[in-house]
Amino acid sequence: MGLDEAATKPHEQLAAHLTAKLDAVNELIRKRMASRHAPRIPEVTAHLVEAGGKRLRPMLTLAAADMCGYGGEFDVHLAATVEFIHTATLLHDDVVDESAQRRGRPTANLLWDNKSSVLVGDYLFSRAFQLMVETGSLRVLDILANASATIAEGEVLQLTAARDLSTTEAIYLQIVRGKTAALFSAATEVGGVIASAPETQVRALYEYGDALGIAFQIVDDLLDYQGDMSVTGKNVGDDFRERKLTLPVIKAIAAADDDERAFWRRTIEKGDQRDGDLDHAMALLNAHDTLSQTRQDALAWAEKAKSALAAMPEHSLRTMLIDLADYVVARIS
Amino acid sequence: MGLDEAATKPHEQLAAHLTAKLDAVNELIRKRMASRHAPRIPEVTAHLVEAGGKRLRPMLTLAAADMCGYGGEFDVHLAATVEFIHTATLLHDDVVDESAQRRGRPTANLLWDNKSSVLVGDYLFSRAFQLMVETGSLRVLDILANASATIAEGEVLQLTAARDLSTTEAIYLQIVRGKTAALFSAATEVGGVIASAPETQVRALYEYGDALGIAFQIVDDLLDYQGDMSVTGKNVGDDFRERKLTLPVIKAIAAADDDERAFWRRTIEKGDQRDGDLDHAMALLNAHDTLSQTRQDALAWAEKAKSALAAMPEHSLRTMLIDLADYVVARIS
Repeated sequence: MGLDEAATKPHEQLAAHLTAKLDAVNELIRKRMASRHAPRIPEVTAHLVEAGGKRLRPMLTLAAADMCGYGGEFDVHLAATVEFIHTATLLHDDVVDESAQRRGRPTANLLWDNKSSVLVGDYLFSRAFQLMVETGSLRVLDILANASATIAEGEVLQLTAARDLSTTEAIYLQIVRGKTAALFSAATEVGGVIASAPETQVRALYEYGDALGIAFQIVDDLLDYQGDMSVTGKNVGDDFRERKLTLPVIKAIAAADDDERAFWRRTIEKGDQRDGDLDHAMALLNAHDTLSQTRQDALAWAEKAKSALAAMPEHSLRTMLIDLADYVVARIS
Repeated sequence: MGLDEAATKPHEQLAAHLTAKLDAVNELIRKRMASRHAPRIPEVTAHLVEAGGKRLRPMLTLAAADMCGYGGEFDVHLAATVEFIHTATLLHDDVVDESAQRRGRPTANLLWDNKSSVLVGDYLFSRAFQLMVETGSLRVLDILANASATIAEGEVLQLTAARDLSTTEAIYLQIVRGKTAALFSAATEVGGVIASAPETQVRALYEYGDALGIAFQIVDDLLDYQGDMSVTGKNVGDDFRERKLTLPVIKAIAAADDDERAFWRRTIEKGDQRDGDLDHAMALLNAHDTLSQTRQDALAWAEKAKSALAAMPEHSLRTMLIDLADYVVARIS
């Protein structure tokens, strides 16, 4: 890719370092995505799989396995597995969120229909399942089965906790683990497991992925209230308008007086939003300083990710993963 | 259940014979369906799991394992697994079909929403995955991963083949394997595998489930054109109105002259249906004798199912499974 020299961002450095393996992952993804009888499948997925995703999760698996000295081929299977699971959840999320755009392009459910998004998501999930069975590692299967359950449970929890003002930070954290961190931590952990790394390292890889994923999602939620649309591609206040309870609002509700609670009840719980409400919500977040508290939380998770890697041996990939944790929170620092 | 004496139908005889194991399956299903944090999950699934399903697929697994002399507990895990996979596909099917009723009750997507149906289906699939990993059998995982892929591919194929007059009997068969037979054959096969049955018996169990599932689905499609609504719960001609290409129509199209082909193109491909079209369609099916040809196909698959069991040792369960194959086609004989 010619990135070796020019690469500055950590995920580009990772991609440059892992380029041969990443090519093998992309080849395997293309091969396993194909369906002899149902051409709709690659149509729907090519759209997503080739839509400029950074392959962040596959890189986490490849980097973990490489750091642990793995010399086999199943890291490629597992990297493709996590990308398939990720893509499957995106397809189903777009149905659930009724999204019209992802990564600046129309979503599959808009281009085709919800039916294809549901069924092709199921297809990718079953293909992921086949890929991981091929590794022959029951421990890997156990980790990915548990991650899948955490993802699904988190998604349902998000649906039921939505618009419920009693949502706590603990529930938020569980939703975030489901949405993002469970697949990050499974991606890094299975890399260590397939390489037969010592238990302390497998645990460290899990901790890194978990903390990185949580930091990643908190940053995303924070940027919704203070991001630059030209950078984030999101309008400020989308989550407020969609009545999503994210960390800045959960913290503000916990600190709210009666009037403020009535405001949140009207705007989030009842969905009765008027002109000026977003400005008032922003004022409340600022009054209770919850944006900077949320920022502190994200930074603390990034630090936790970095400390976890202390258990890993010195390695250029370890340095890149440490830089990646810093990069994830750089947008809000 | 007090069914031992009164039981006449084969699935009731199976239930009576397997009653202790079935109770364990139901207990495991209840336990694994629960979610500490997302009460919506058991709400949505209880509705389906307790809505009077016959537990046909779990019974196939239990019967297969029992016939092969299995003495362990993992047959219960696998029976719950296949029921979870079945329930997950029902939830997703209802979204795809935009169904309003199943088994005479409102569907989950109508009672709650499509979002819950998609996500709770994903949850059940991941719970199924966890259950099968607990058996520790890579071969079982391989069989169920392949069945999942066949199911998902068949569903997508059905979507893309819908309303396409060039759909052949071979494509129909693949759709039917995805919709029905893949889970039947996986259910019986894993019963033999977990019991470490000889290969000839494992193969026979697979063949039985495959042929039984195909017979089952062909009967269902045939009854749509000639069933008694008070028995089937379906209106005659629902598939025609929904422009579904099932076996009686595929056979009629293959035998159609130009005028008839124009009729099918207008009604099925273009969806321009007028008063009297269903009567005309029925007349064409009768003119080409495709209802009785379809009936012959179903009977032949039921025979194939029964012959497969010749490889199994003499056993009261074997007799019940033979009777079950006859029972499946009895409604059209």
